This record gives sequence, structure tokens and C-alpha cells, in this order.
Amino acid sequence: MEEIRVFCPATIANLSCGFDVLGVALDAVGDEMIVRKTDTKGIQITKITGQDLPLATEKNVAGVAGLALLDKSDYKGGFEIEIHKKIKPGSGIGSSAASSAGTVWAMNYLLGKPFSLSELVEFAMQGEKLASDVAHADNVAPALFGGFTLVRGYNPLDVVPLPSPKELYATVIHPQIEIKTSDSRKILKTNITLQKGIKQWGNLAGLVAGLFKNDYDLIGRSLEDHVVEPIRSILIPGFDDIKTRSLESGALGCGISGSGPSIFALSKGKNIAQRVAQAMTQVYEAIDVEFDVHVSPINTIGVKPLF
Amino acid sequence: MEEIRVFCPATIANLSCGFDVLGVALDAVGDEMIVRKTDTKGIQITKITGQDLPLATEKNVAGVAGLALLDKSDYKGGFEIEIHKKIKPGSGIGSSAASSAGTVWAMNYLLGKPFSLSELVEFAMQGEKLASDVAHADNVAPALFGGFTLVRGYNPLDVVPLPSPKELYATVIHPQIEIKTSDSRKILKTNITLQKGIKQWGNLAGLVAGLFKNDYDLIGRSLEDHVVEPIRSILIPGFDDIKTRSLESGALGCGISGSGPSIFALSKGKNIAQRVAQAMTQVYEAIDVEFDVHVSPINTIGVKPLF
Repeated sequence: MEEIRVFCPATIANLSCGFDVLGVALDAVGDEMIVRKTDTKGIQITKITGQDLPLATEKNVAGVAGLALLDKSDYKGGFEIEIHKKIKPGSGIGSSAASSAGTVWAMNYLLGKPFSLSELVEFAMQGEKLASDVAHADNVAPALFGGFTLVRGYNPLDVVPLPSPKELYATVIHPQIEIKTSDSRKILKTNITLQKGIKQWGNLAGLVAGLFKNDYDLIGRSLEDHVVEPIRSILIPGFDDIKTRSLESGALGCGISGSGPSIFALSKGKNIAQRVAQAMTQVYEAIDVEFDVHVSPINTIGVKPLF
Repeated sequence: MEEIRVFCPATIANLSCGFDVLGVALDAVGDEMIVRKTDTKGIQITKITGQDLPLATEKNVAGVAGLALLDKSDYKGGFEIEIHKKIKPGSGIGSSAASSAGTVWAMNYLLGKPFSLSELVEFAMQGEKLASDVAHADNVAPALFGGFTLVRGYNPLDVVPLPSPKELYATVIHPQIEIKTSDSRKILKTNITLQKGIKQWGNLAGLVAGLFKNDYDLIGRSLEDHVVEPIRSILIPGFDDIKTRSLESGALGCGISGSGPSIFALSKGKNIAQRVAQAMTQVYEAIDVEFDVHVSPINTIGVKPLF
């Protein structure tokens, strides 16, 4: 095969208690990319629709991730990439990760899958490094593995796929303001109290157990963030109201998606997730904030071919 | 039934990455207790063997835990308790928790089980409060539920039983020095870096996933403690050598049991656990430290009747 078209999922990182280690892939929001083999060495980005992003290979996360893969490959040719962005950059649902993950997945596919998923995560992390100065994996790992994905540690990278209970749905609302990941990291404190740390790891352990047990109530009780949300939520208009209304509407939990400004909720069943979307919508309509809102099942596959 | 004899398991709390939230029950180390109904109101501790501990009800953890249960019960009579200690107080393998858990489990059994396991944990926590000033549950919860047990949070108490992979064995070595839990807590810092927190919760999430997946390697990779072990291990003679030798002997992981001074290792299979016990033994023999050493399968039941 010389060319492939792929769906590159949006992802929610952190998920309240899993700061910097947890993420989940979505099925109803994502970019499309077309990747094709060429005889010319290197990566050429030939077309970008939907967003105004750099075509220059080394300034585009897809280009950088692709070059990282090429560098480890013995393939002598190159690739052309078309990016059709549907995820807005700076939204907090893994826009750069989708491009990086989609690129390396598609290239690996066209080369006959010489690399493992974990190796693809490492290549895609180079795109993340371009986007936010930090080569984090909490968006690219779920974008590639699908479902809920733990990044237990780096050096060496240790990605642990977790189960995704079937009735879980995500609601994501994106207020049209931009917060850069790098800025959003700067406002975090470098120290936390041991007491808050204990609550946070107790909750993350509870969330992981809840995913394995299909225990939606335990998942809900565990979706608490004592460390980051109290600080970052200040940057997001209407956060407290959206959270309160989401929980009143039946969401299991609600928090900041990645470094924001998007807000996510997880719910049991599509109906509740849609009710949560309505409640979120009403809050932003009342205070005149422009927004996008999405309801999505969990994507348990990650990047996937579109035929 | 008017009288019951029970086995009250020793427990390893914290387990490296699960400080204050995780514990596991052992099967080869534990106290025995005899609890019997009497017409006299209240709790009488009639006999203690194996250790010199107070018989006065309100000065003994078993008495205090028992009174907490009686206070919530409509039973008009009382109980007599015999305690046959085999776990040394101050060893760091849940000596007080075994007495507290055994008492309330046996009383509940004789009363026809009016209370849930979670309610029993709350009663037993009153015994822990007497022993160490803090009503923690990370020993009493596994002593009552059995196996690996997560205490996700308090207010309200949220105990989450976790699976116990069948081939896991614990090795525990107890150097004959005493460290009080309360002293051992005082040397901890009240703040940790966010970076260490992230490593810790990544590891705990990995450990929980490893228990569910029967993934012994993942369990091993996750048994790291970046927060407490670097501080507390200074109080324990030979800690670094014991840890190095245990890992060289095939242990999946090794760390401080509870607040010490006991050191635990987890291994896949009894043979490796016994080899680890030998390696630990050699370290203490070489530096002339008195010790007890135990090899134990995981106790998946918790307190249990002895007929």
C-alpha cells in the first residue's frame, strides 16, 4: 500500500486525578490525515485544511514526529502528509498529539509495521516536545493505544493500557479562549503537601480499580483533583458552574481536559452525557462565551484507517 | 455460638508506592484470639500471652476497638477476650491492627454479623488511633478484607478490595529495634515536589493495574517509593543492602513495611521468596542484628475462624 487515510483521535489527558500519567482517546472528535509514500527522502507536508498551521516540516508537530520515525527506519524514501484539522490547537484535547500520533501510525502501517506501539509513542513525543517544550506522552499514548492509557513512567517509557467500561461516554466543552500548555504549566506550584499527594494517589488507584471492575460509582468517586484543578480552573471561565451543573445532570465526574481550557465530564450512558452537554451549553450561553461541545464514546482502538 | 477462636493476620501497609492508602494481608504470620460472649456488659481482656501488653480495656487496642463496636450495637451483654500475640508490637507489620481487626471481626461473628466489613474497619480504626494517634485504615482494612486493599479515601471511608495474583509471596524481615509509628511519621516532610508526586501516583496506578492483569513484571516495575523510603530507610539498619540483595535474589520489589523497621519483598513463587529470605538473613547475620524472618503467601480472606 502506498497511501492511507487515517482518523486521529482527540484525547483527554490527566482526567482529574491522573495528572501527567493518564489519558483517554475519543471517538467522535479527531483529525483526518492522508499519508503517502514518495521517492523523495524526508517528510513533505503538502496540505493543511481547517487551521492555519506551518507547512515547514520542522515547524509542524507531524513533521517532527515523522522525522523521528524516519531517523530510526531503514526506509530510503519519504512521505507526503495531508492534515485535515478538526481539533482546534490550544483546546486541551490533544490537537498536536493527534497530528503526531496519526503521522507515525500511518507511516508505520505503510512500512509494514516495523515499530511497536510503544516505539511509536516515543516518536510522537517528539512532536509534543515541539508543541509544548515537554516530551510528554499522556495524549500521544492514548491516541496510539486507544482507550484509557497509563504512562507509568519514562526512562524507559512504560505505557500500560487500561480497560474502558462500555457505557462510559465523554462530554467535552471547549470555550474559545486559548491557553498554551507551556503557560498552563508555569502557574503550577513545584511543591504539593503530602496530604494532597495521598488523596491524589488514592483517587488514581481508585479510578484504575474502577476501570477494571466496571464500577461506575467508584470511577465517579475517584474523579477528584486536589492538586492541579484548584489552580488551573481559575484560568477557565465558568469552570465551577459547569462542574456543578454537570454533576447535577448526572455526570460521574468533571474536570479540566489536559491543560485546559476544555472541560470534560464522564458519564454512564450516552443520554446522560448529552444531558451534561446541554447543561454545560447553558452555562456558556448565559455568560456569552463562544464554545464547541462534543459527546463521544471512548475510542478503544486509537488511530485507525479510514477506507 | 458463644465463643470463637480466630487468626488475625499481619499486614504490610504502604507497599512502596501506596503510602497511607494500600496494604496486604499475610497468611503465615498472625495472632490468635479467643472471643466469648458474657452476661457482663463491656469488654474484659482476660489473658494476654506472648507480649507484655495492658489488660485494661481502654488501654488496649483490642479493648478500644471492641468498645467502638459495642457502642453502635444493641447487644446488652459483653465479651471476654484472650489475645495470643505472635506479631511483635512496633514491628511494622500491623501488630495493633491484627488485635483490633480480630476483636471486631470475632464480636461481629458472634452477634450474627450485624455490621458490614467497612463498618468493622471503622471500629478497628479506633484501636489504631490509640496505638499511633492516627485512625488510619491501611492495616486494618486488609486485615479485615484480606488480600490487597486500597483505602481510596476517608470521609466517608472508601475501601476497595483489589485482586491478589496467585503466585505472589511476601518475605518480611524484622530487625529487633523498635520504631514507633508516631515517631516514624514525624520525620516525614509535609511537602513533596510535584515531580515526585507524579512518579508516585504513576507507580501506584501501575501496581493496581499489575494486580488486576496478573502482570508480575509490571508489579515489580511499580514497586518504587520516591517519597517516603528515602527518608524513613535511614532509620533501618542495613536497609540498602537488604534491598539490593533481595532484588538480586529475584524479588519483584522490596521496601519498608508500614512505618518500619520491618522490610518486605514481594516475589513470584515461594522458591524465590525463600531465596530472598536467605539473602536478607545473611545481611543481618553479617552485621549482628537480631531479626525474625517470615515467608508468606497472600491471605485473601483476612481474619478467619480457627476451629
